Amino acid sequence: MSSSRVVIHSFESQVLKGNFLNDPSVRRVAVYLPPDYEESNRYPVVYLLAGFTGRGTMMLNESAWDENIQQRLDRLIMTNAIHPLIAVLPDCFTRYGGSQYINSVGTGRYMDHIVEELVPWADATFRTIPERERRAVAGKSSGGFGALTMGMRHPETFGEVACHSGDMYFELSYRQDFIAVLRSIHKFGGVGKFIETFRALHPKSGDFHPILNTIAMAACYSPNLDSAWGFDLPFDVETGEWNDAVWARWKEWDPIELIPQYGDALRSLQLLYIDCGARDEFNLQFGARTFGARLMRAGIAHRREEFEDGHFNVQYRFDVSLQAMSEVWSS
Amino acid sequence: MSSSRVVIHSFESQVLKGNFLNDPSVRRVAVYLPPDYEESNRYPVVYLLAGFTGRGTMMLNESAWDENIQQRLDRLIMTNAIHPLIAVLPDCFTRYGGSQYINSVGTGRYMDHIVEELVPWADATFRTIPERERRAVAGKSSGGFGALTMGMRHPETFGEVACHSGDMYFELSYRQDFIAVLRSIHKFGGVGKFIETFRALHPKSGDFHPILNTIAMAACYSPNLDSAWGFDLPFDVETGEWNDAVWARWKEWDPIELIPQYGDALRSLQLLYIDCGARDEFNLQFGARTFGARLMRAGIAHRREEFEDGHFNVQYRFDVSLQAMSEVWSS
Amino acid sequence: MSSSRVVIHSFESQVLKGNFLNDPSVRRVAVYLPPDYEESNRYPVVYLLAGFTGRGTMMLNESAWDENIQQRLDRLIMTNAIHPLIAVLPDCFTRYGGSQYINSVGTGRYMDHIVEELVPWADATFRTIPERERRAVAGKSSGGFGALTMGMRHPETFGEVACHSGDMYFELSYRQDFIAVLRSIHKFGGVGKFIETFRALHPKSGDFHPILNTIAMAACYSPNLDSAWGFDLPFDVETGEWNDAVWARWKEWDPIELIPQYGDALRSLQLLYIDCGARDEFNLQFGARTFGARLMRAGIAHRREEFEDGHFNVQYRFDVSLQAMSEVWSS
Amino acid sequence: MSSSRVVIHSFESQVLKGNFLNDPSVRRVAVYLPPDYEESNRYPVVYLLAGFTGRGTMMLNESAWDENIQQRLDRLIMTNAIHPLIAVLPDCFTRYGGSQYINSVGTGRYMDHIVEELVPWADATFRTIPERERRAVAGKSSGGFGALTMGMRHPETFGEVACHSGDMYFELSYRQDFIAVLRSIHKFGGVGKFIETFRALHPKSGDFHPILNTIAMAACYSPNLDSAWGFDLPFDVETGEWNDAVWARWKEWDPIELIPQYGDALRSLQLLYIDCGARDEFNLQFGARTFGARLMRAGIAHRREEFEDGHFNVQYRFDVSLQAMSEVWSS
Repeated sequence: MSSSRVVIHSFESQVLKGNFLNDPSVRRVAVYLPPDYEESNRYPVVYLLAGFTGRGTMMLNESAWDENIQQRLDRLIMTNAIHPLIAVLPDCFTRYGGSQYINSVGTGRYMDHIVEELVPWADATFRTIPERERRAVAGKSSGGFGALTMGMRHPETFGEVACHSGDMYFELSYRQDFIAVLRSIHKFGGVGKFIETFRALHPKSGDFHPILNTIAMAACYSPNLDSAWGFDLPFDVETGEWNDAVWARWKEWDPIELIPQYGDALRSLQLLYIDCGARDEFNLQFGARTFGARLMRAGIAHRREEFEDGHFNVQYRFDVSLQAMSEVWSS
Repeated sequence: MSSSRVVIHSFESQVLKGNFLNDPSVRRVAVYLPPDYEESNRYPVVYLLAGFTGRGTMMLNESAWDENIQQRLDRLIMTNAIHPLIAVLPDCFTRYGGSQYINSVGTGRYMDHIVEELVPWADATFRTIPERERRAVAGKSSGGFGALTMGMRHPETFGEVACHSGDMYFELSYRQDFIAVLRSIHKFGGVGKFIETFRALHPKSGDFHPILNTIAMAACYSPNLDSAWGFDLPFDVETGEWNDAVWARWKEWDPIELIPQYGDALRSLQLLYIDCGARDEFNLQFGARTFGARLMRAGIAHRREEFEDGHFNVQYRFDVSLQAMSEVWSS
Repeated sequence: MSSSRVVIHSFESQVLKGNFLNDPSVRRVAVYLPPDYEESNRYPVVYLLAGFTGRGTMMLNESAWDENIQQRLDRLIMTNAIHPLIAVLPDCFTRYGGSQYINSVGTGRYMDHIVEELVPWADATFRTIPERERRAVAGKSSGGFGALTMGMRHPETFGEVACHSGDMYFELSYRQDFIAVLRSIHKFGGVGKFIETFRALHPKSGDFHPILNTIAMAACYSPNLDSAWGFDLPFDVETGEWNDAVWARWKEWDPIELIPQYGDALRSLQLLYIDCGARDEFNLQFGARTFGARLMRAGIAHRREEFEDGHFNVQYRFDVSLQAMSEVWSS
Repeated sequence: MSSSRVVIHSFESQVLKGNFLNDPSVRRVAVYLPPDYEESNRYPVVYLLAGFTGRGTMMLNESAWDENIQQRLDRLIMTNAIHPLIAVLPDCFTRYGGSQYINSVGTGRYMDHIVEELVPWADATFRTIPERERRAVAGKSSGGFGALTMGMRHPETFGEVACHSGDMYFELSYRQDFIAVLRSIHKFGGVGKFIETFRALHPKSGDFHPILNTIAMAACYSPNLDSAWGFDLPFDVETGEWNDAVWARWKEWDPIELIPQYGDALRSLQLLYIDCGARDEFNLQFGARTFGARLMRAGIAHRREEFEDGHFNVQYRFDVSLQAMSEVWSS
């Protein structure tokens, strides 16, 4: 039996050219090819979306106690826990740490990059089964948000969706970051100074992360190319006074608000899998519960799990979602 | 010179009789009488409102590094920093830790208790100047909220208001407590069990305090005598799903929302003093800033300060507000 | 039945006169006299020692959910849970927050103040049973340390000792404070500046408390009147380098080291009660366990309990120790 | 100009065969070869030692905001900030997360593995300058400890040592982990159960890390093959009672204690570089200061820096130590 392989390809994106943040349009896309790949026929494919501050190739990083994605897929395939598959690991990183896998004038057209560029390329290059029913999208945290958002907006492309600890119920999750911004942005010299200097800052501690996350999300959800920073914030940085109009733009992306709008798409999925840790540090378990309750009320089939853990180091949850996909593909 | 005295009076309230929580209608009200009280003429009076889980008599507690209210007033009067005054320390404690000094069917008519009962009694019993211009109300935290609320609703009674670190901008302050409820209420056996058992619990740690605060505020702001607990919560205790209708009832009490409604009352005050610590643990500094910004826009005179401290052990700020009152009374 | 009374007496100490820290030699000593005191015969007496930053009168402070010492004793006596008793509440506070109830040239002769002054005075003034078998000493935290230390050094005076969450195993408890000193003392301008300014500082937050505690303990355990501050620290304030000689002076007061030296005294007690919370924030549970293990090995009778709580708000544990004393007195 | 390369070699160790923990004796050793490697003559070589829970290949992991070791060395060489060099990245990981790079019967002969196996192999395989004066060892945290320890015990092999945030002054650094063990080991079912189960545990949170670290250090410093776990702990797991004999074995490895013993070796180094973050979470700054103070007193030349950061994500400090080495090599 030949062993699995990871191919890293420099993909020259057209849709990312000239993006607002001047992020590179050439991206290193990693593709996992299962054991015995050459001799076999064709494989289902899963697009695995990295979380905030991540890119696909980082899923190949080694760590002390955990498998990287290649080791994980190898084990799952070798023990027949899952159907052999191809995995595509996109790079949708931005200057601010992530694109949420959406199209935004404030960042770039990352959703189009995946749907219009990577999917056709992968189908043309590797031995995929080029059908929506055998094409899944999965991710964790921002990647889970991306997977779910992709499933809502592109059901013609993806037949299975797995959202692990995905961003949702923004009011409970992002708002605590806003408070950190209000408390601490002056220590970094204000938003403009933060944007200029954050990459070289040492240490990146204190409220660095929630500030960066807020900026990154604003660039995704409420871009404003006429503004000083390229985006609007949903609150006044001095007083904290709320800006309903900006916040309304964010909520247009909050999955818990979007079931009426995308009900048909969600209903058409062969698998809609959602999970979250019961002690998620960003309160995403309440998002998952609320989303689940609303799916139930709308009569939309899905599978939801909650597990005893927090937000970090929960890659082992992919075992569950990949097996759920396999069951769909094998039935 | 005779020294100051504190008189503790058992006040038999009529308006608190039969209150929903079965809290006592007889209350120990402490009254501070300044040095040389007997010989003097008449004095302005300040109603000092304790914070959540406090009652007036607790302001007489001794502590290691700080003065109690008698020592503080003595020093301020003896050094001529403030005008000699009478201070009334009401007890508006409830079974859940506090009444916010408002009338609520879910707790009792605590605002009426002060305005309709304590004020006439104090004027009849002590050598006060029984005029609105010489009658102030001040407090910290829930007491600051109470003072401000009293000023809005009873400008005929109070001429000066001082709100220290007062509850406001509920969305930024109370919501973090709601998350604690969502995360931890099951450890206490649910809301009903918590209500039954919390007083005898040891230890009162973890998320005990934010849970209790949420329950107490709900009893004040969104009582519902037909419900299981006597109040409604603005979120689903399982999923965290938001309840806009209940939340709207809370916002009817949020000072930052009430300037249009009570603009005339606020404008009529001889002193409207607001301060907050720049590192308030409950994010109340953003409430104070937002309230201040809106007062400015409405053209309402006020004095606002921000100081380098958190929410706790900031009794020394009364020095500032009491001096501000004195200036008004002496001018 | 007449109700209980608390008498507060201004005691003019001779032994505290001219103490090194210039703390007052006149102290307000509170004495609890049980219900029906006048008519009764004579009572056993317990000396209750407050914790660090406390003095006896603070045990009379009111709080939201807990009894003060008068309410607690009233309830215990009225329900026949304990034998009626007199309680003496000394004031051994110092400029730095506490004396540990020992004699030190760096603070004052607080042990002598209790043993040589308060005990004879109380026996002469109140209807005590003036016998060592009916005279107990109890306390919490620094007060627990004081009670145990008193029992070791003055078994002729005290027949029962109760040590709640008492300071011991200094290596595990105080050393974490030393690290806080090392990390943060420069933010306060150094030790000398801290000593000059700490009382007026606002806020008293961050590492204020562990720094103060370290200074207070050094004044007690390793005074050095020839030094700049009046005491030596067991570590170099810059590098953290350990000073074995100074540390040896501290260990002369560590209860876990003193069983060989004071074995006879401990053995002579009618009651040696020790408890600690299993989650004590200062790691004192390990001190209690180690002390207990060493008592066992030395064959010294004692009663030890561990309870599910931390270091704070554990006054309810006095119920247990007071009942244990009562059993001794009633047998 | 040809670009740099990283070669990953499966090294079959003889000295690690049959090690007590059954860790693999075949190790993946990464070697960095600088740009233009083929055409050049010979290069100095630095052995870079990973921290606890790390191995050499993890230094190649990608991250959001930082360079991996290849990118870092490329930049430093390309900008002429450092002399072109070869870097060897050993794998001295163990079942418990790390070997401290020492020989221990409780783990394996990791120091010998480097000195007796990797050094001769690297000199035979790559274009190194095979002289002690051109052979450096550097690392961070446990790797910094390893580098310093290596320099003390093998000055014939290494001429330059760089210790970043290295383990030392065990009393201040490891003892806080011991307290975590005492507090929490029962939640994991005891030490034996922890050892059996920790690798598969989810989540690895709470006191997981300090417990693991304590076990790993005990396996290194106080192995005992006749004991239940293969090592002794310096304290009683129940009471916390101290074990001086075991602790003495640990201190035999504490750099701050070893200057008298290894003074000649340290004096012989061409570079002895030490740094630490001023806010190191493990208190290692006090170790570095104490070590520095003692080097001064012993008249041993060294370079010491302290920087404004904590313990984590401080790889950028290698820029400083690598430049210091380069200066030595260029002089």
